Amino acid sequence: MILKRWLVGDPLKTTQASHERLSKTLALAIFSSNAISSVAYASEEILLVLILAGTAAVAWSIPVSLAILFLVLVLTISYRQIIYEYPEGGGAYIVARSNLGDVPALIAAAALMIDYVLTVAVSVAAGVAALTSAIPSLFIHREALGLVAILFIVVMNLRGVRESGKFFAIPTYLAIGALGLLVVIGTVQSFFSSGAVPPPASPGGPGGEMENLTLFLILRSFAAGCSAVTGMEVISNGVKAFRHPESKNAATTMIWMSAILASLFIGISWMAYHHGILAKVDETVVSQLARLTFGSGAIYYAVQIGTMTLLVLAANSAFAGFPHLASILARDGFMPHQMATFGDRLVFSNGIIILGFFACLLLVLFQGNTHALIPLYAIGVFVSFTLSQAGMVKRWLVKKGVHWRKKLIVNGVGAVTTGIATVIIASTKFMQGAWIVFLLVAVLILMFRGIRSHYKAVSEQITLDRRGQRPPMPRRNIVIIPISGVNRAVVRAVDYARSRPGEIRAVFVDLDPEESAKVKIQWAQWGCGVNLIALPSPYRSVLGSLLDYIEGILEKEPDTWVNVVIPEILPARWWQNILHNQRALLLKASLLFKDRVILTDVPFHLAR
Amino acid sequence: MILKRWLVGDPLKTTQASHERLSKTLALAIFSSNAISSVAYASEEILLVLILAGTAAVAWSIPVSLAILFLVLVLTISYRQIIYEYPEGGGAYIVARSNLGDVPALIAAAALMIDYVLTVAVSVAAGVAALTSAIPSLFIHREALGLVAILFIVVMNLRGVRESGKFFAIPTYLAIGALGLLVVIGTVQSFFSSGAVPPPASPGGPGGEMENLTLFLILRSFAAGCSAVTGMEVISNGVKAFRHPESKNAATTMIWMSAILASLFIGISWMAYHHGILAKVDETVVSQLARLTFGSGAIYYAVQIGTMTLLVLAANSAFAGFPHLASILARDGFMPHQMATFGDRLVFSNGIIILGFFACLLLVLFQGNTHALIPLYAIGVFVSFTLSQAGMVKRWLVKKGVHWRKKLIVNGVGAVTTGIATVIIASTKFMQGAWIVFLLVAVLILMFRGIRSHYKAVSEQITLDRRGQRPPMPRRNIVIIPISGVNRAVVRAVDYARSRPGEIRAVFVDLDPEESAKVKIQWAQWGCGVNLIALPSPYRSVLGSLLDYIEGILEKEPDTWVNVVIPEILPARWWQNILHNQRALLLKASLLFKDRVILTDVPFHLAR
Repeated sequence: MILKRWLVGDPLKTTQASHERLSKTLALAIFSSNAISSVAYASEEILLVLILAGTAAVAWSIPVSLAILFLVLVLTISYRQIIYEYPEGGGAYIVARSNLGDVPALIAAAALMIDYVLTVAVSVAAGVAALTSAIPSLFIHREALGLVAILFIVVMNLRGVRESGKFFAIPTYLAIGALGLLVVIGTVQSFFSSGAVPPPASPGGPGGEMENLTLFLILRSFAAGCSAVTGMEVISNGVKAFRHPESKNAATTMIWMSAILASLFIGISWMAYHHGILAKVDETVVSQLARLTFGSGAIYYAVQIGTMTLLVLAANSAFAGFPHLASILARDGFMPHQMATFGDRLVFSNGIIILGFFACLLLVLFQGNTHALIPLYAIGVFVSFTLSQAGMVKRWLVKKGVHWRKKLIVNGVGAVTTGIATVIIASTKFMQGAWIVFLLVAVLILMFRGIRSHYKAVSEQITLDRRGQRPPMPRRNIVIIPISGVNRAVVRAVDYARSRPGEIRAVFVDLDPEESAKVKIQWAQWGCGVNLIALPSPYRSVLGSLLDYIEGILEKEPDTWVNVVIPEILPARWWQNILHNQRALLLKASLLFKDRVILTDVPFHLAR
Repeated sequence: MILKRWLVGDPLKTTQASHERLSKTLALAIFSSNAISSVAYASEEILLVLILAGTAAVAWSIPVSLAILFLVLVLTISYRQIIYEYPEGGGAYIVARSNLGDVPALIAAAALMIDYVLTVAVSVAAGVAALTSAIPSLFIHREALGLVAILFIVVMNLRGVRESGKFFAIPTYLAIGALGLLVVIGTVQSFFSSGAVPPPASPGGPGGEMENLTLFLILRSFAAGCSAVTGMEVISNGVKAFRHPESKNAATTMIWMSAILASLFIGISWMAYHHGILAKVDETVVSQLARLTFGSGAIYYAVQIGTMTLLVLAANSAFAGFPHLASILARDGFMPHQMATFGDRLVFSNGIIILGFFACLLLVLFQGNTHALIPLYAIGVFVSFTLSQAGMVKRWLVKKGVHWRKKLIVNGVGAVTTGIATVIIASTKFMQGAWIVFLLVAVLILMFRGIRSHYKAVSEQITLDRRGQRPPMPRRNIVIIPISGVNRAVVRAVDYARSRPGEIRAVFVDLDPEESAKVKIQWAQWGCGVNLIALPSPYRSVLGSLLDYIEGILEKEPDTWVNVVIPEILPARWWQNILHNQRALLLKASLLFKDRVILTDVPFHLAR
């Protein structure tokens, strides 16, 4: 408990924090880290695919980057419409559910949950890559560094750092500034210099063998680059957090975010092409560019640290999104109810720990390698993009309203574009890991539906019927006090039981005739006339004999309930519990699931 | 539960098994595996030390073996006296406690507990060595094989295999037969052949450097060989299990066991010397001898399998001894009471799992290497030997009786001999690991004493005083029913509470005004006039608000007890519990340790 308090801090009063609305400047910082941070790896992923067809193919990185820029544009315009239409927050799950129905909504939800886990894993892996590019000696420790980073984020979130999100604004802007400086200076330089380093006549991919520059390869590089647009949906989820007028402010912030993302992304892609920079195993493309532009001095380190910070903040943002989505799902009955009680710190902690655990698992399985994780990443995001856009299309068709045709066309273009991108990503990455995502989506949907049908069955069973019939109560009530000797705790339990109606029986298990005789003599003095029953014990098992006795009563007398009153001796220090109460605990665990058994603990606290 | 049943089997009726007395033939098989199995490694350990001074020093293995033979003789005679004197079972702890007092007894007990763990680890490591000698390709997997073997023994013991110990008689006799055949045929051969393989002019130890043949080295080889006599005390613990006349039968069996042990041990030492066999890393001495004698045919494999079986059975025997010792210690208040209820299967399982865990830990720490474990092994055994013999000496001095002088001399010789051996082992092996044992003994003794003083403090606090004063009961009793909605489970809890005296309050935490209004309306219909209190929740924490409320009552009204009645919805299948009762469980866990709080569970069982 002390350790927990130290790590997690005292509970926070959340009422005030949630009433504070965000200015556009603050909101941009908080909501954009996820989207903008992807510039750290997106250009590199494009190059990594193209290089398979040799250095000449790298020229294709520019058209591919422009195609992705087009995606950014389409998504920005389409999401602005969602922001206006869903001022309460329009995540893919909500949009799909309100327009398309349960199954598409659950697909979106499953895709998003997987996406949150991947956001953490990919961002942390890329953040560690930014660090190890600057300090190559750390490269061999990248897996451990990633795990430490996730644990750090988990602990910070358990401490409730999410509430104080505004403290993140400064590092976010510093990081964007550092990357912006790199892109501006680098691009200006590039116009005044010829391509500084001529691309070496590399024979192709890491294995040395070379692929042909097919359309499939170009589509694969496009699919890899699509990781650039992940996180663009974040603002549409958080419209409620903006100052009045919420939707308008959110829409403006969306444009700013997209503009920053687009210029950083295309700038990095251009510079990488211009300087003929290739992806290396142990240094990121951004790091190589920063080294080329600024040398290995202070500004270089600022860019690397900024990149790393941005990526860690992106991972952090998933820790806000995951429990939020889980709570919406729980409200609709698709996740355990306890996820819906968002304010309960203990419950919220579960979401954080679950997300952290799976992100760590992914990081270990993929050995902290960003490139290995990327094929799984974009697919979930694009499935949810497509489903929200399709939902909006359906909405305009049904709802109509002002300018609905124009809006329909915007979201229609969005749906078709993201749909095509989804198909490209799914087909080019299927064998590389996208199949895992499809499988997981299916498993999650089965889980969601199973949970809901269980809750429905429960609700049918516990709902009170209109005729006012109360559930049956016992005709007869037997109080059983299991004892192993006569002491103050037992006497208190007997006194408690005697203050209530019902037949009382103290029972003890006869293991040793000598001990039993002693108990009987003491009982004569202290038992207050309560019956004492000695149970035989063929298996020498105290627990077994007690359970047999209680089950015997329940079987013989179907109208009788048994109230088991357990005298519990509670030690002064928690670790002393291993010396006590093992049997009481086992007894309680065995009895809890029996019908017609009511359990009562009567405590006796020790002072030392 | 299904998995557990499958692994562990249905509970066994132990009453009959414990009344069955063992014939001498059966007892020999059951009690001797521990002692006799040590011939598999003892001779090898002697050679391993002597070879450090070069191949010529190996000749010393014969005098060293004879010295150990003398130890076997002394122990046999001394232990026969213990068997006659303690027909109820005379383990070192019992003998030391009844004659020497608490501290020596606790030293013996700690040494024995460590010894049990080491018996499992050493026997399994040696058993795996027997296997990998026959099948060299398994050598790299020896650690994993050892862990699997321990897990297998643990599972078998959880299944209650100990009760059916007689099924072990056949493999034990087969194993003894196989080793006996090896010794008889090998020895006969050796008299008709000259030393077949001349010892190669080896430069000494594994590092190549050679030590001088000092007295210290010879004593070290003696200490290493002392592992041969481990397990000789087993019969004296189990006298009760023999048929009438118990002590006489046990004493006869002891002689048989010692005779087998002595002849196998000296035979193997002699053959190893005669054939100039040296210890190898990947093949045991016994395996080399068996190969020389029988070739690599079926008989060779029979010897190896027999050796392995014997060693596994030796490890298995520790799983009977450890819980038995723990139960005696618990009876005297030095271990948690639950260890004393020997027949309770659940409790007995704890001992098995603890022993298995520590044995696995040792095996992993020492990488499944018998030779690395041996230095820790004999020291505990010899400490307990010395303490029992010293205890017997004290006994004869105090009790006297018939022939007491003769008996005093026998145990006196035993005490001095084992005492000298203990000093030799401790001094020659101290740096190689014996210090760990001394440290652990000290830690265990502190633990034993801490446990006893805790129990003493508890007993003082719970014992009823002679004046007949009962512990105070509450002047006032408030019944609190925490609810989150109105349903059949809640109604049942209310009906239960209403059937008892005391003021009743239903409380719910006000999270959502709409929901609260609904609860209030339903309560008007179903609440039967019971007060409904809505608790504010500044932190949106249901649990926190409830705890604050209950703590508030306890603080304000020091004479009032609070009875918390929890309506529990219990699902039809166990895994559905993760969808329910999280909060009830947390509430119970938080309230259990509060003074003046009585907890009652009112169950509502779901049918599906």
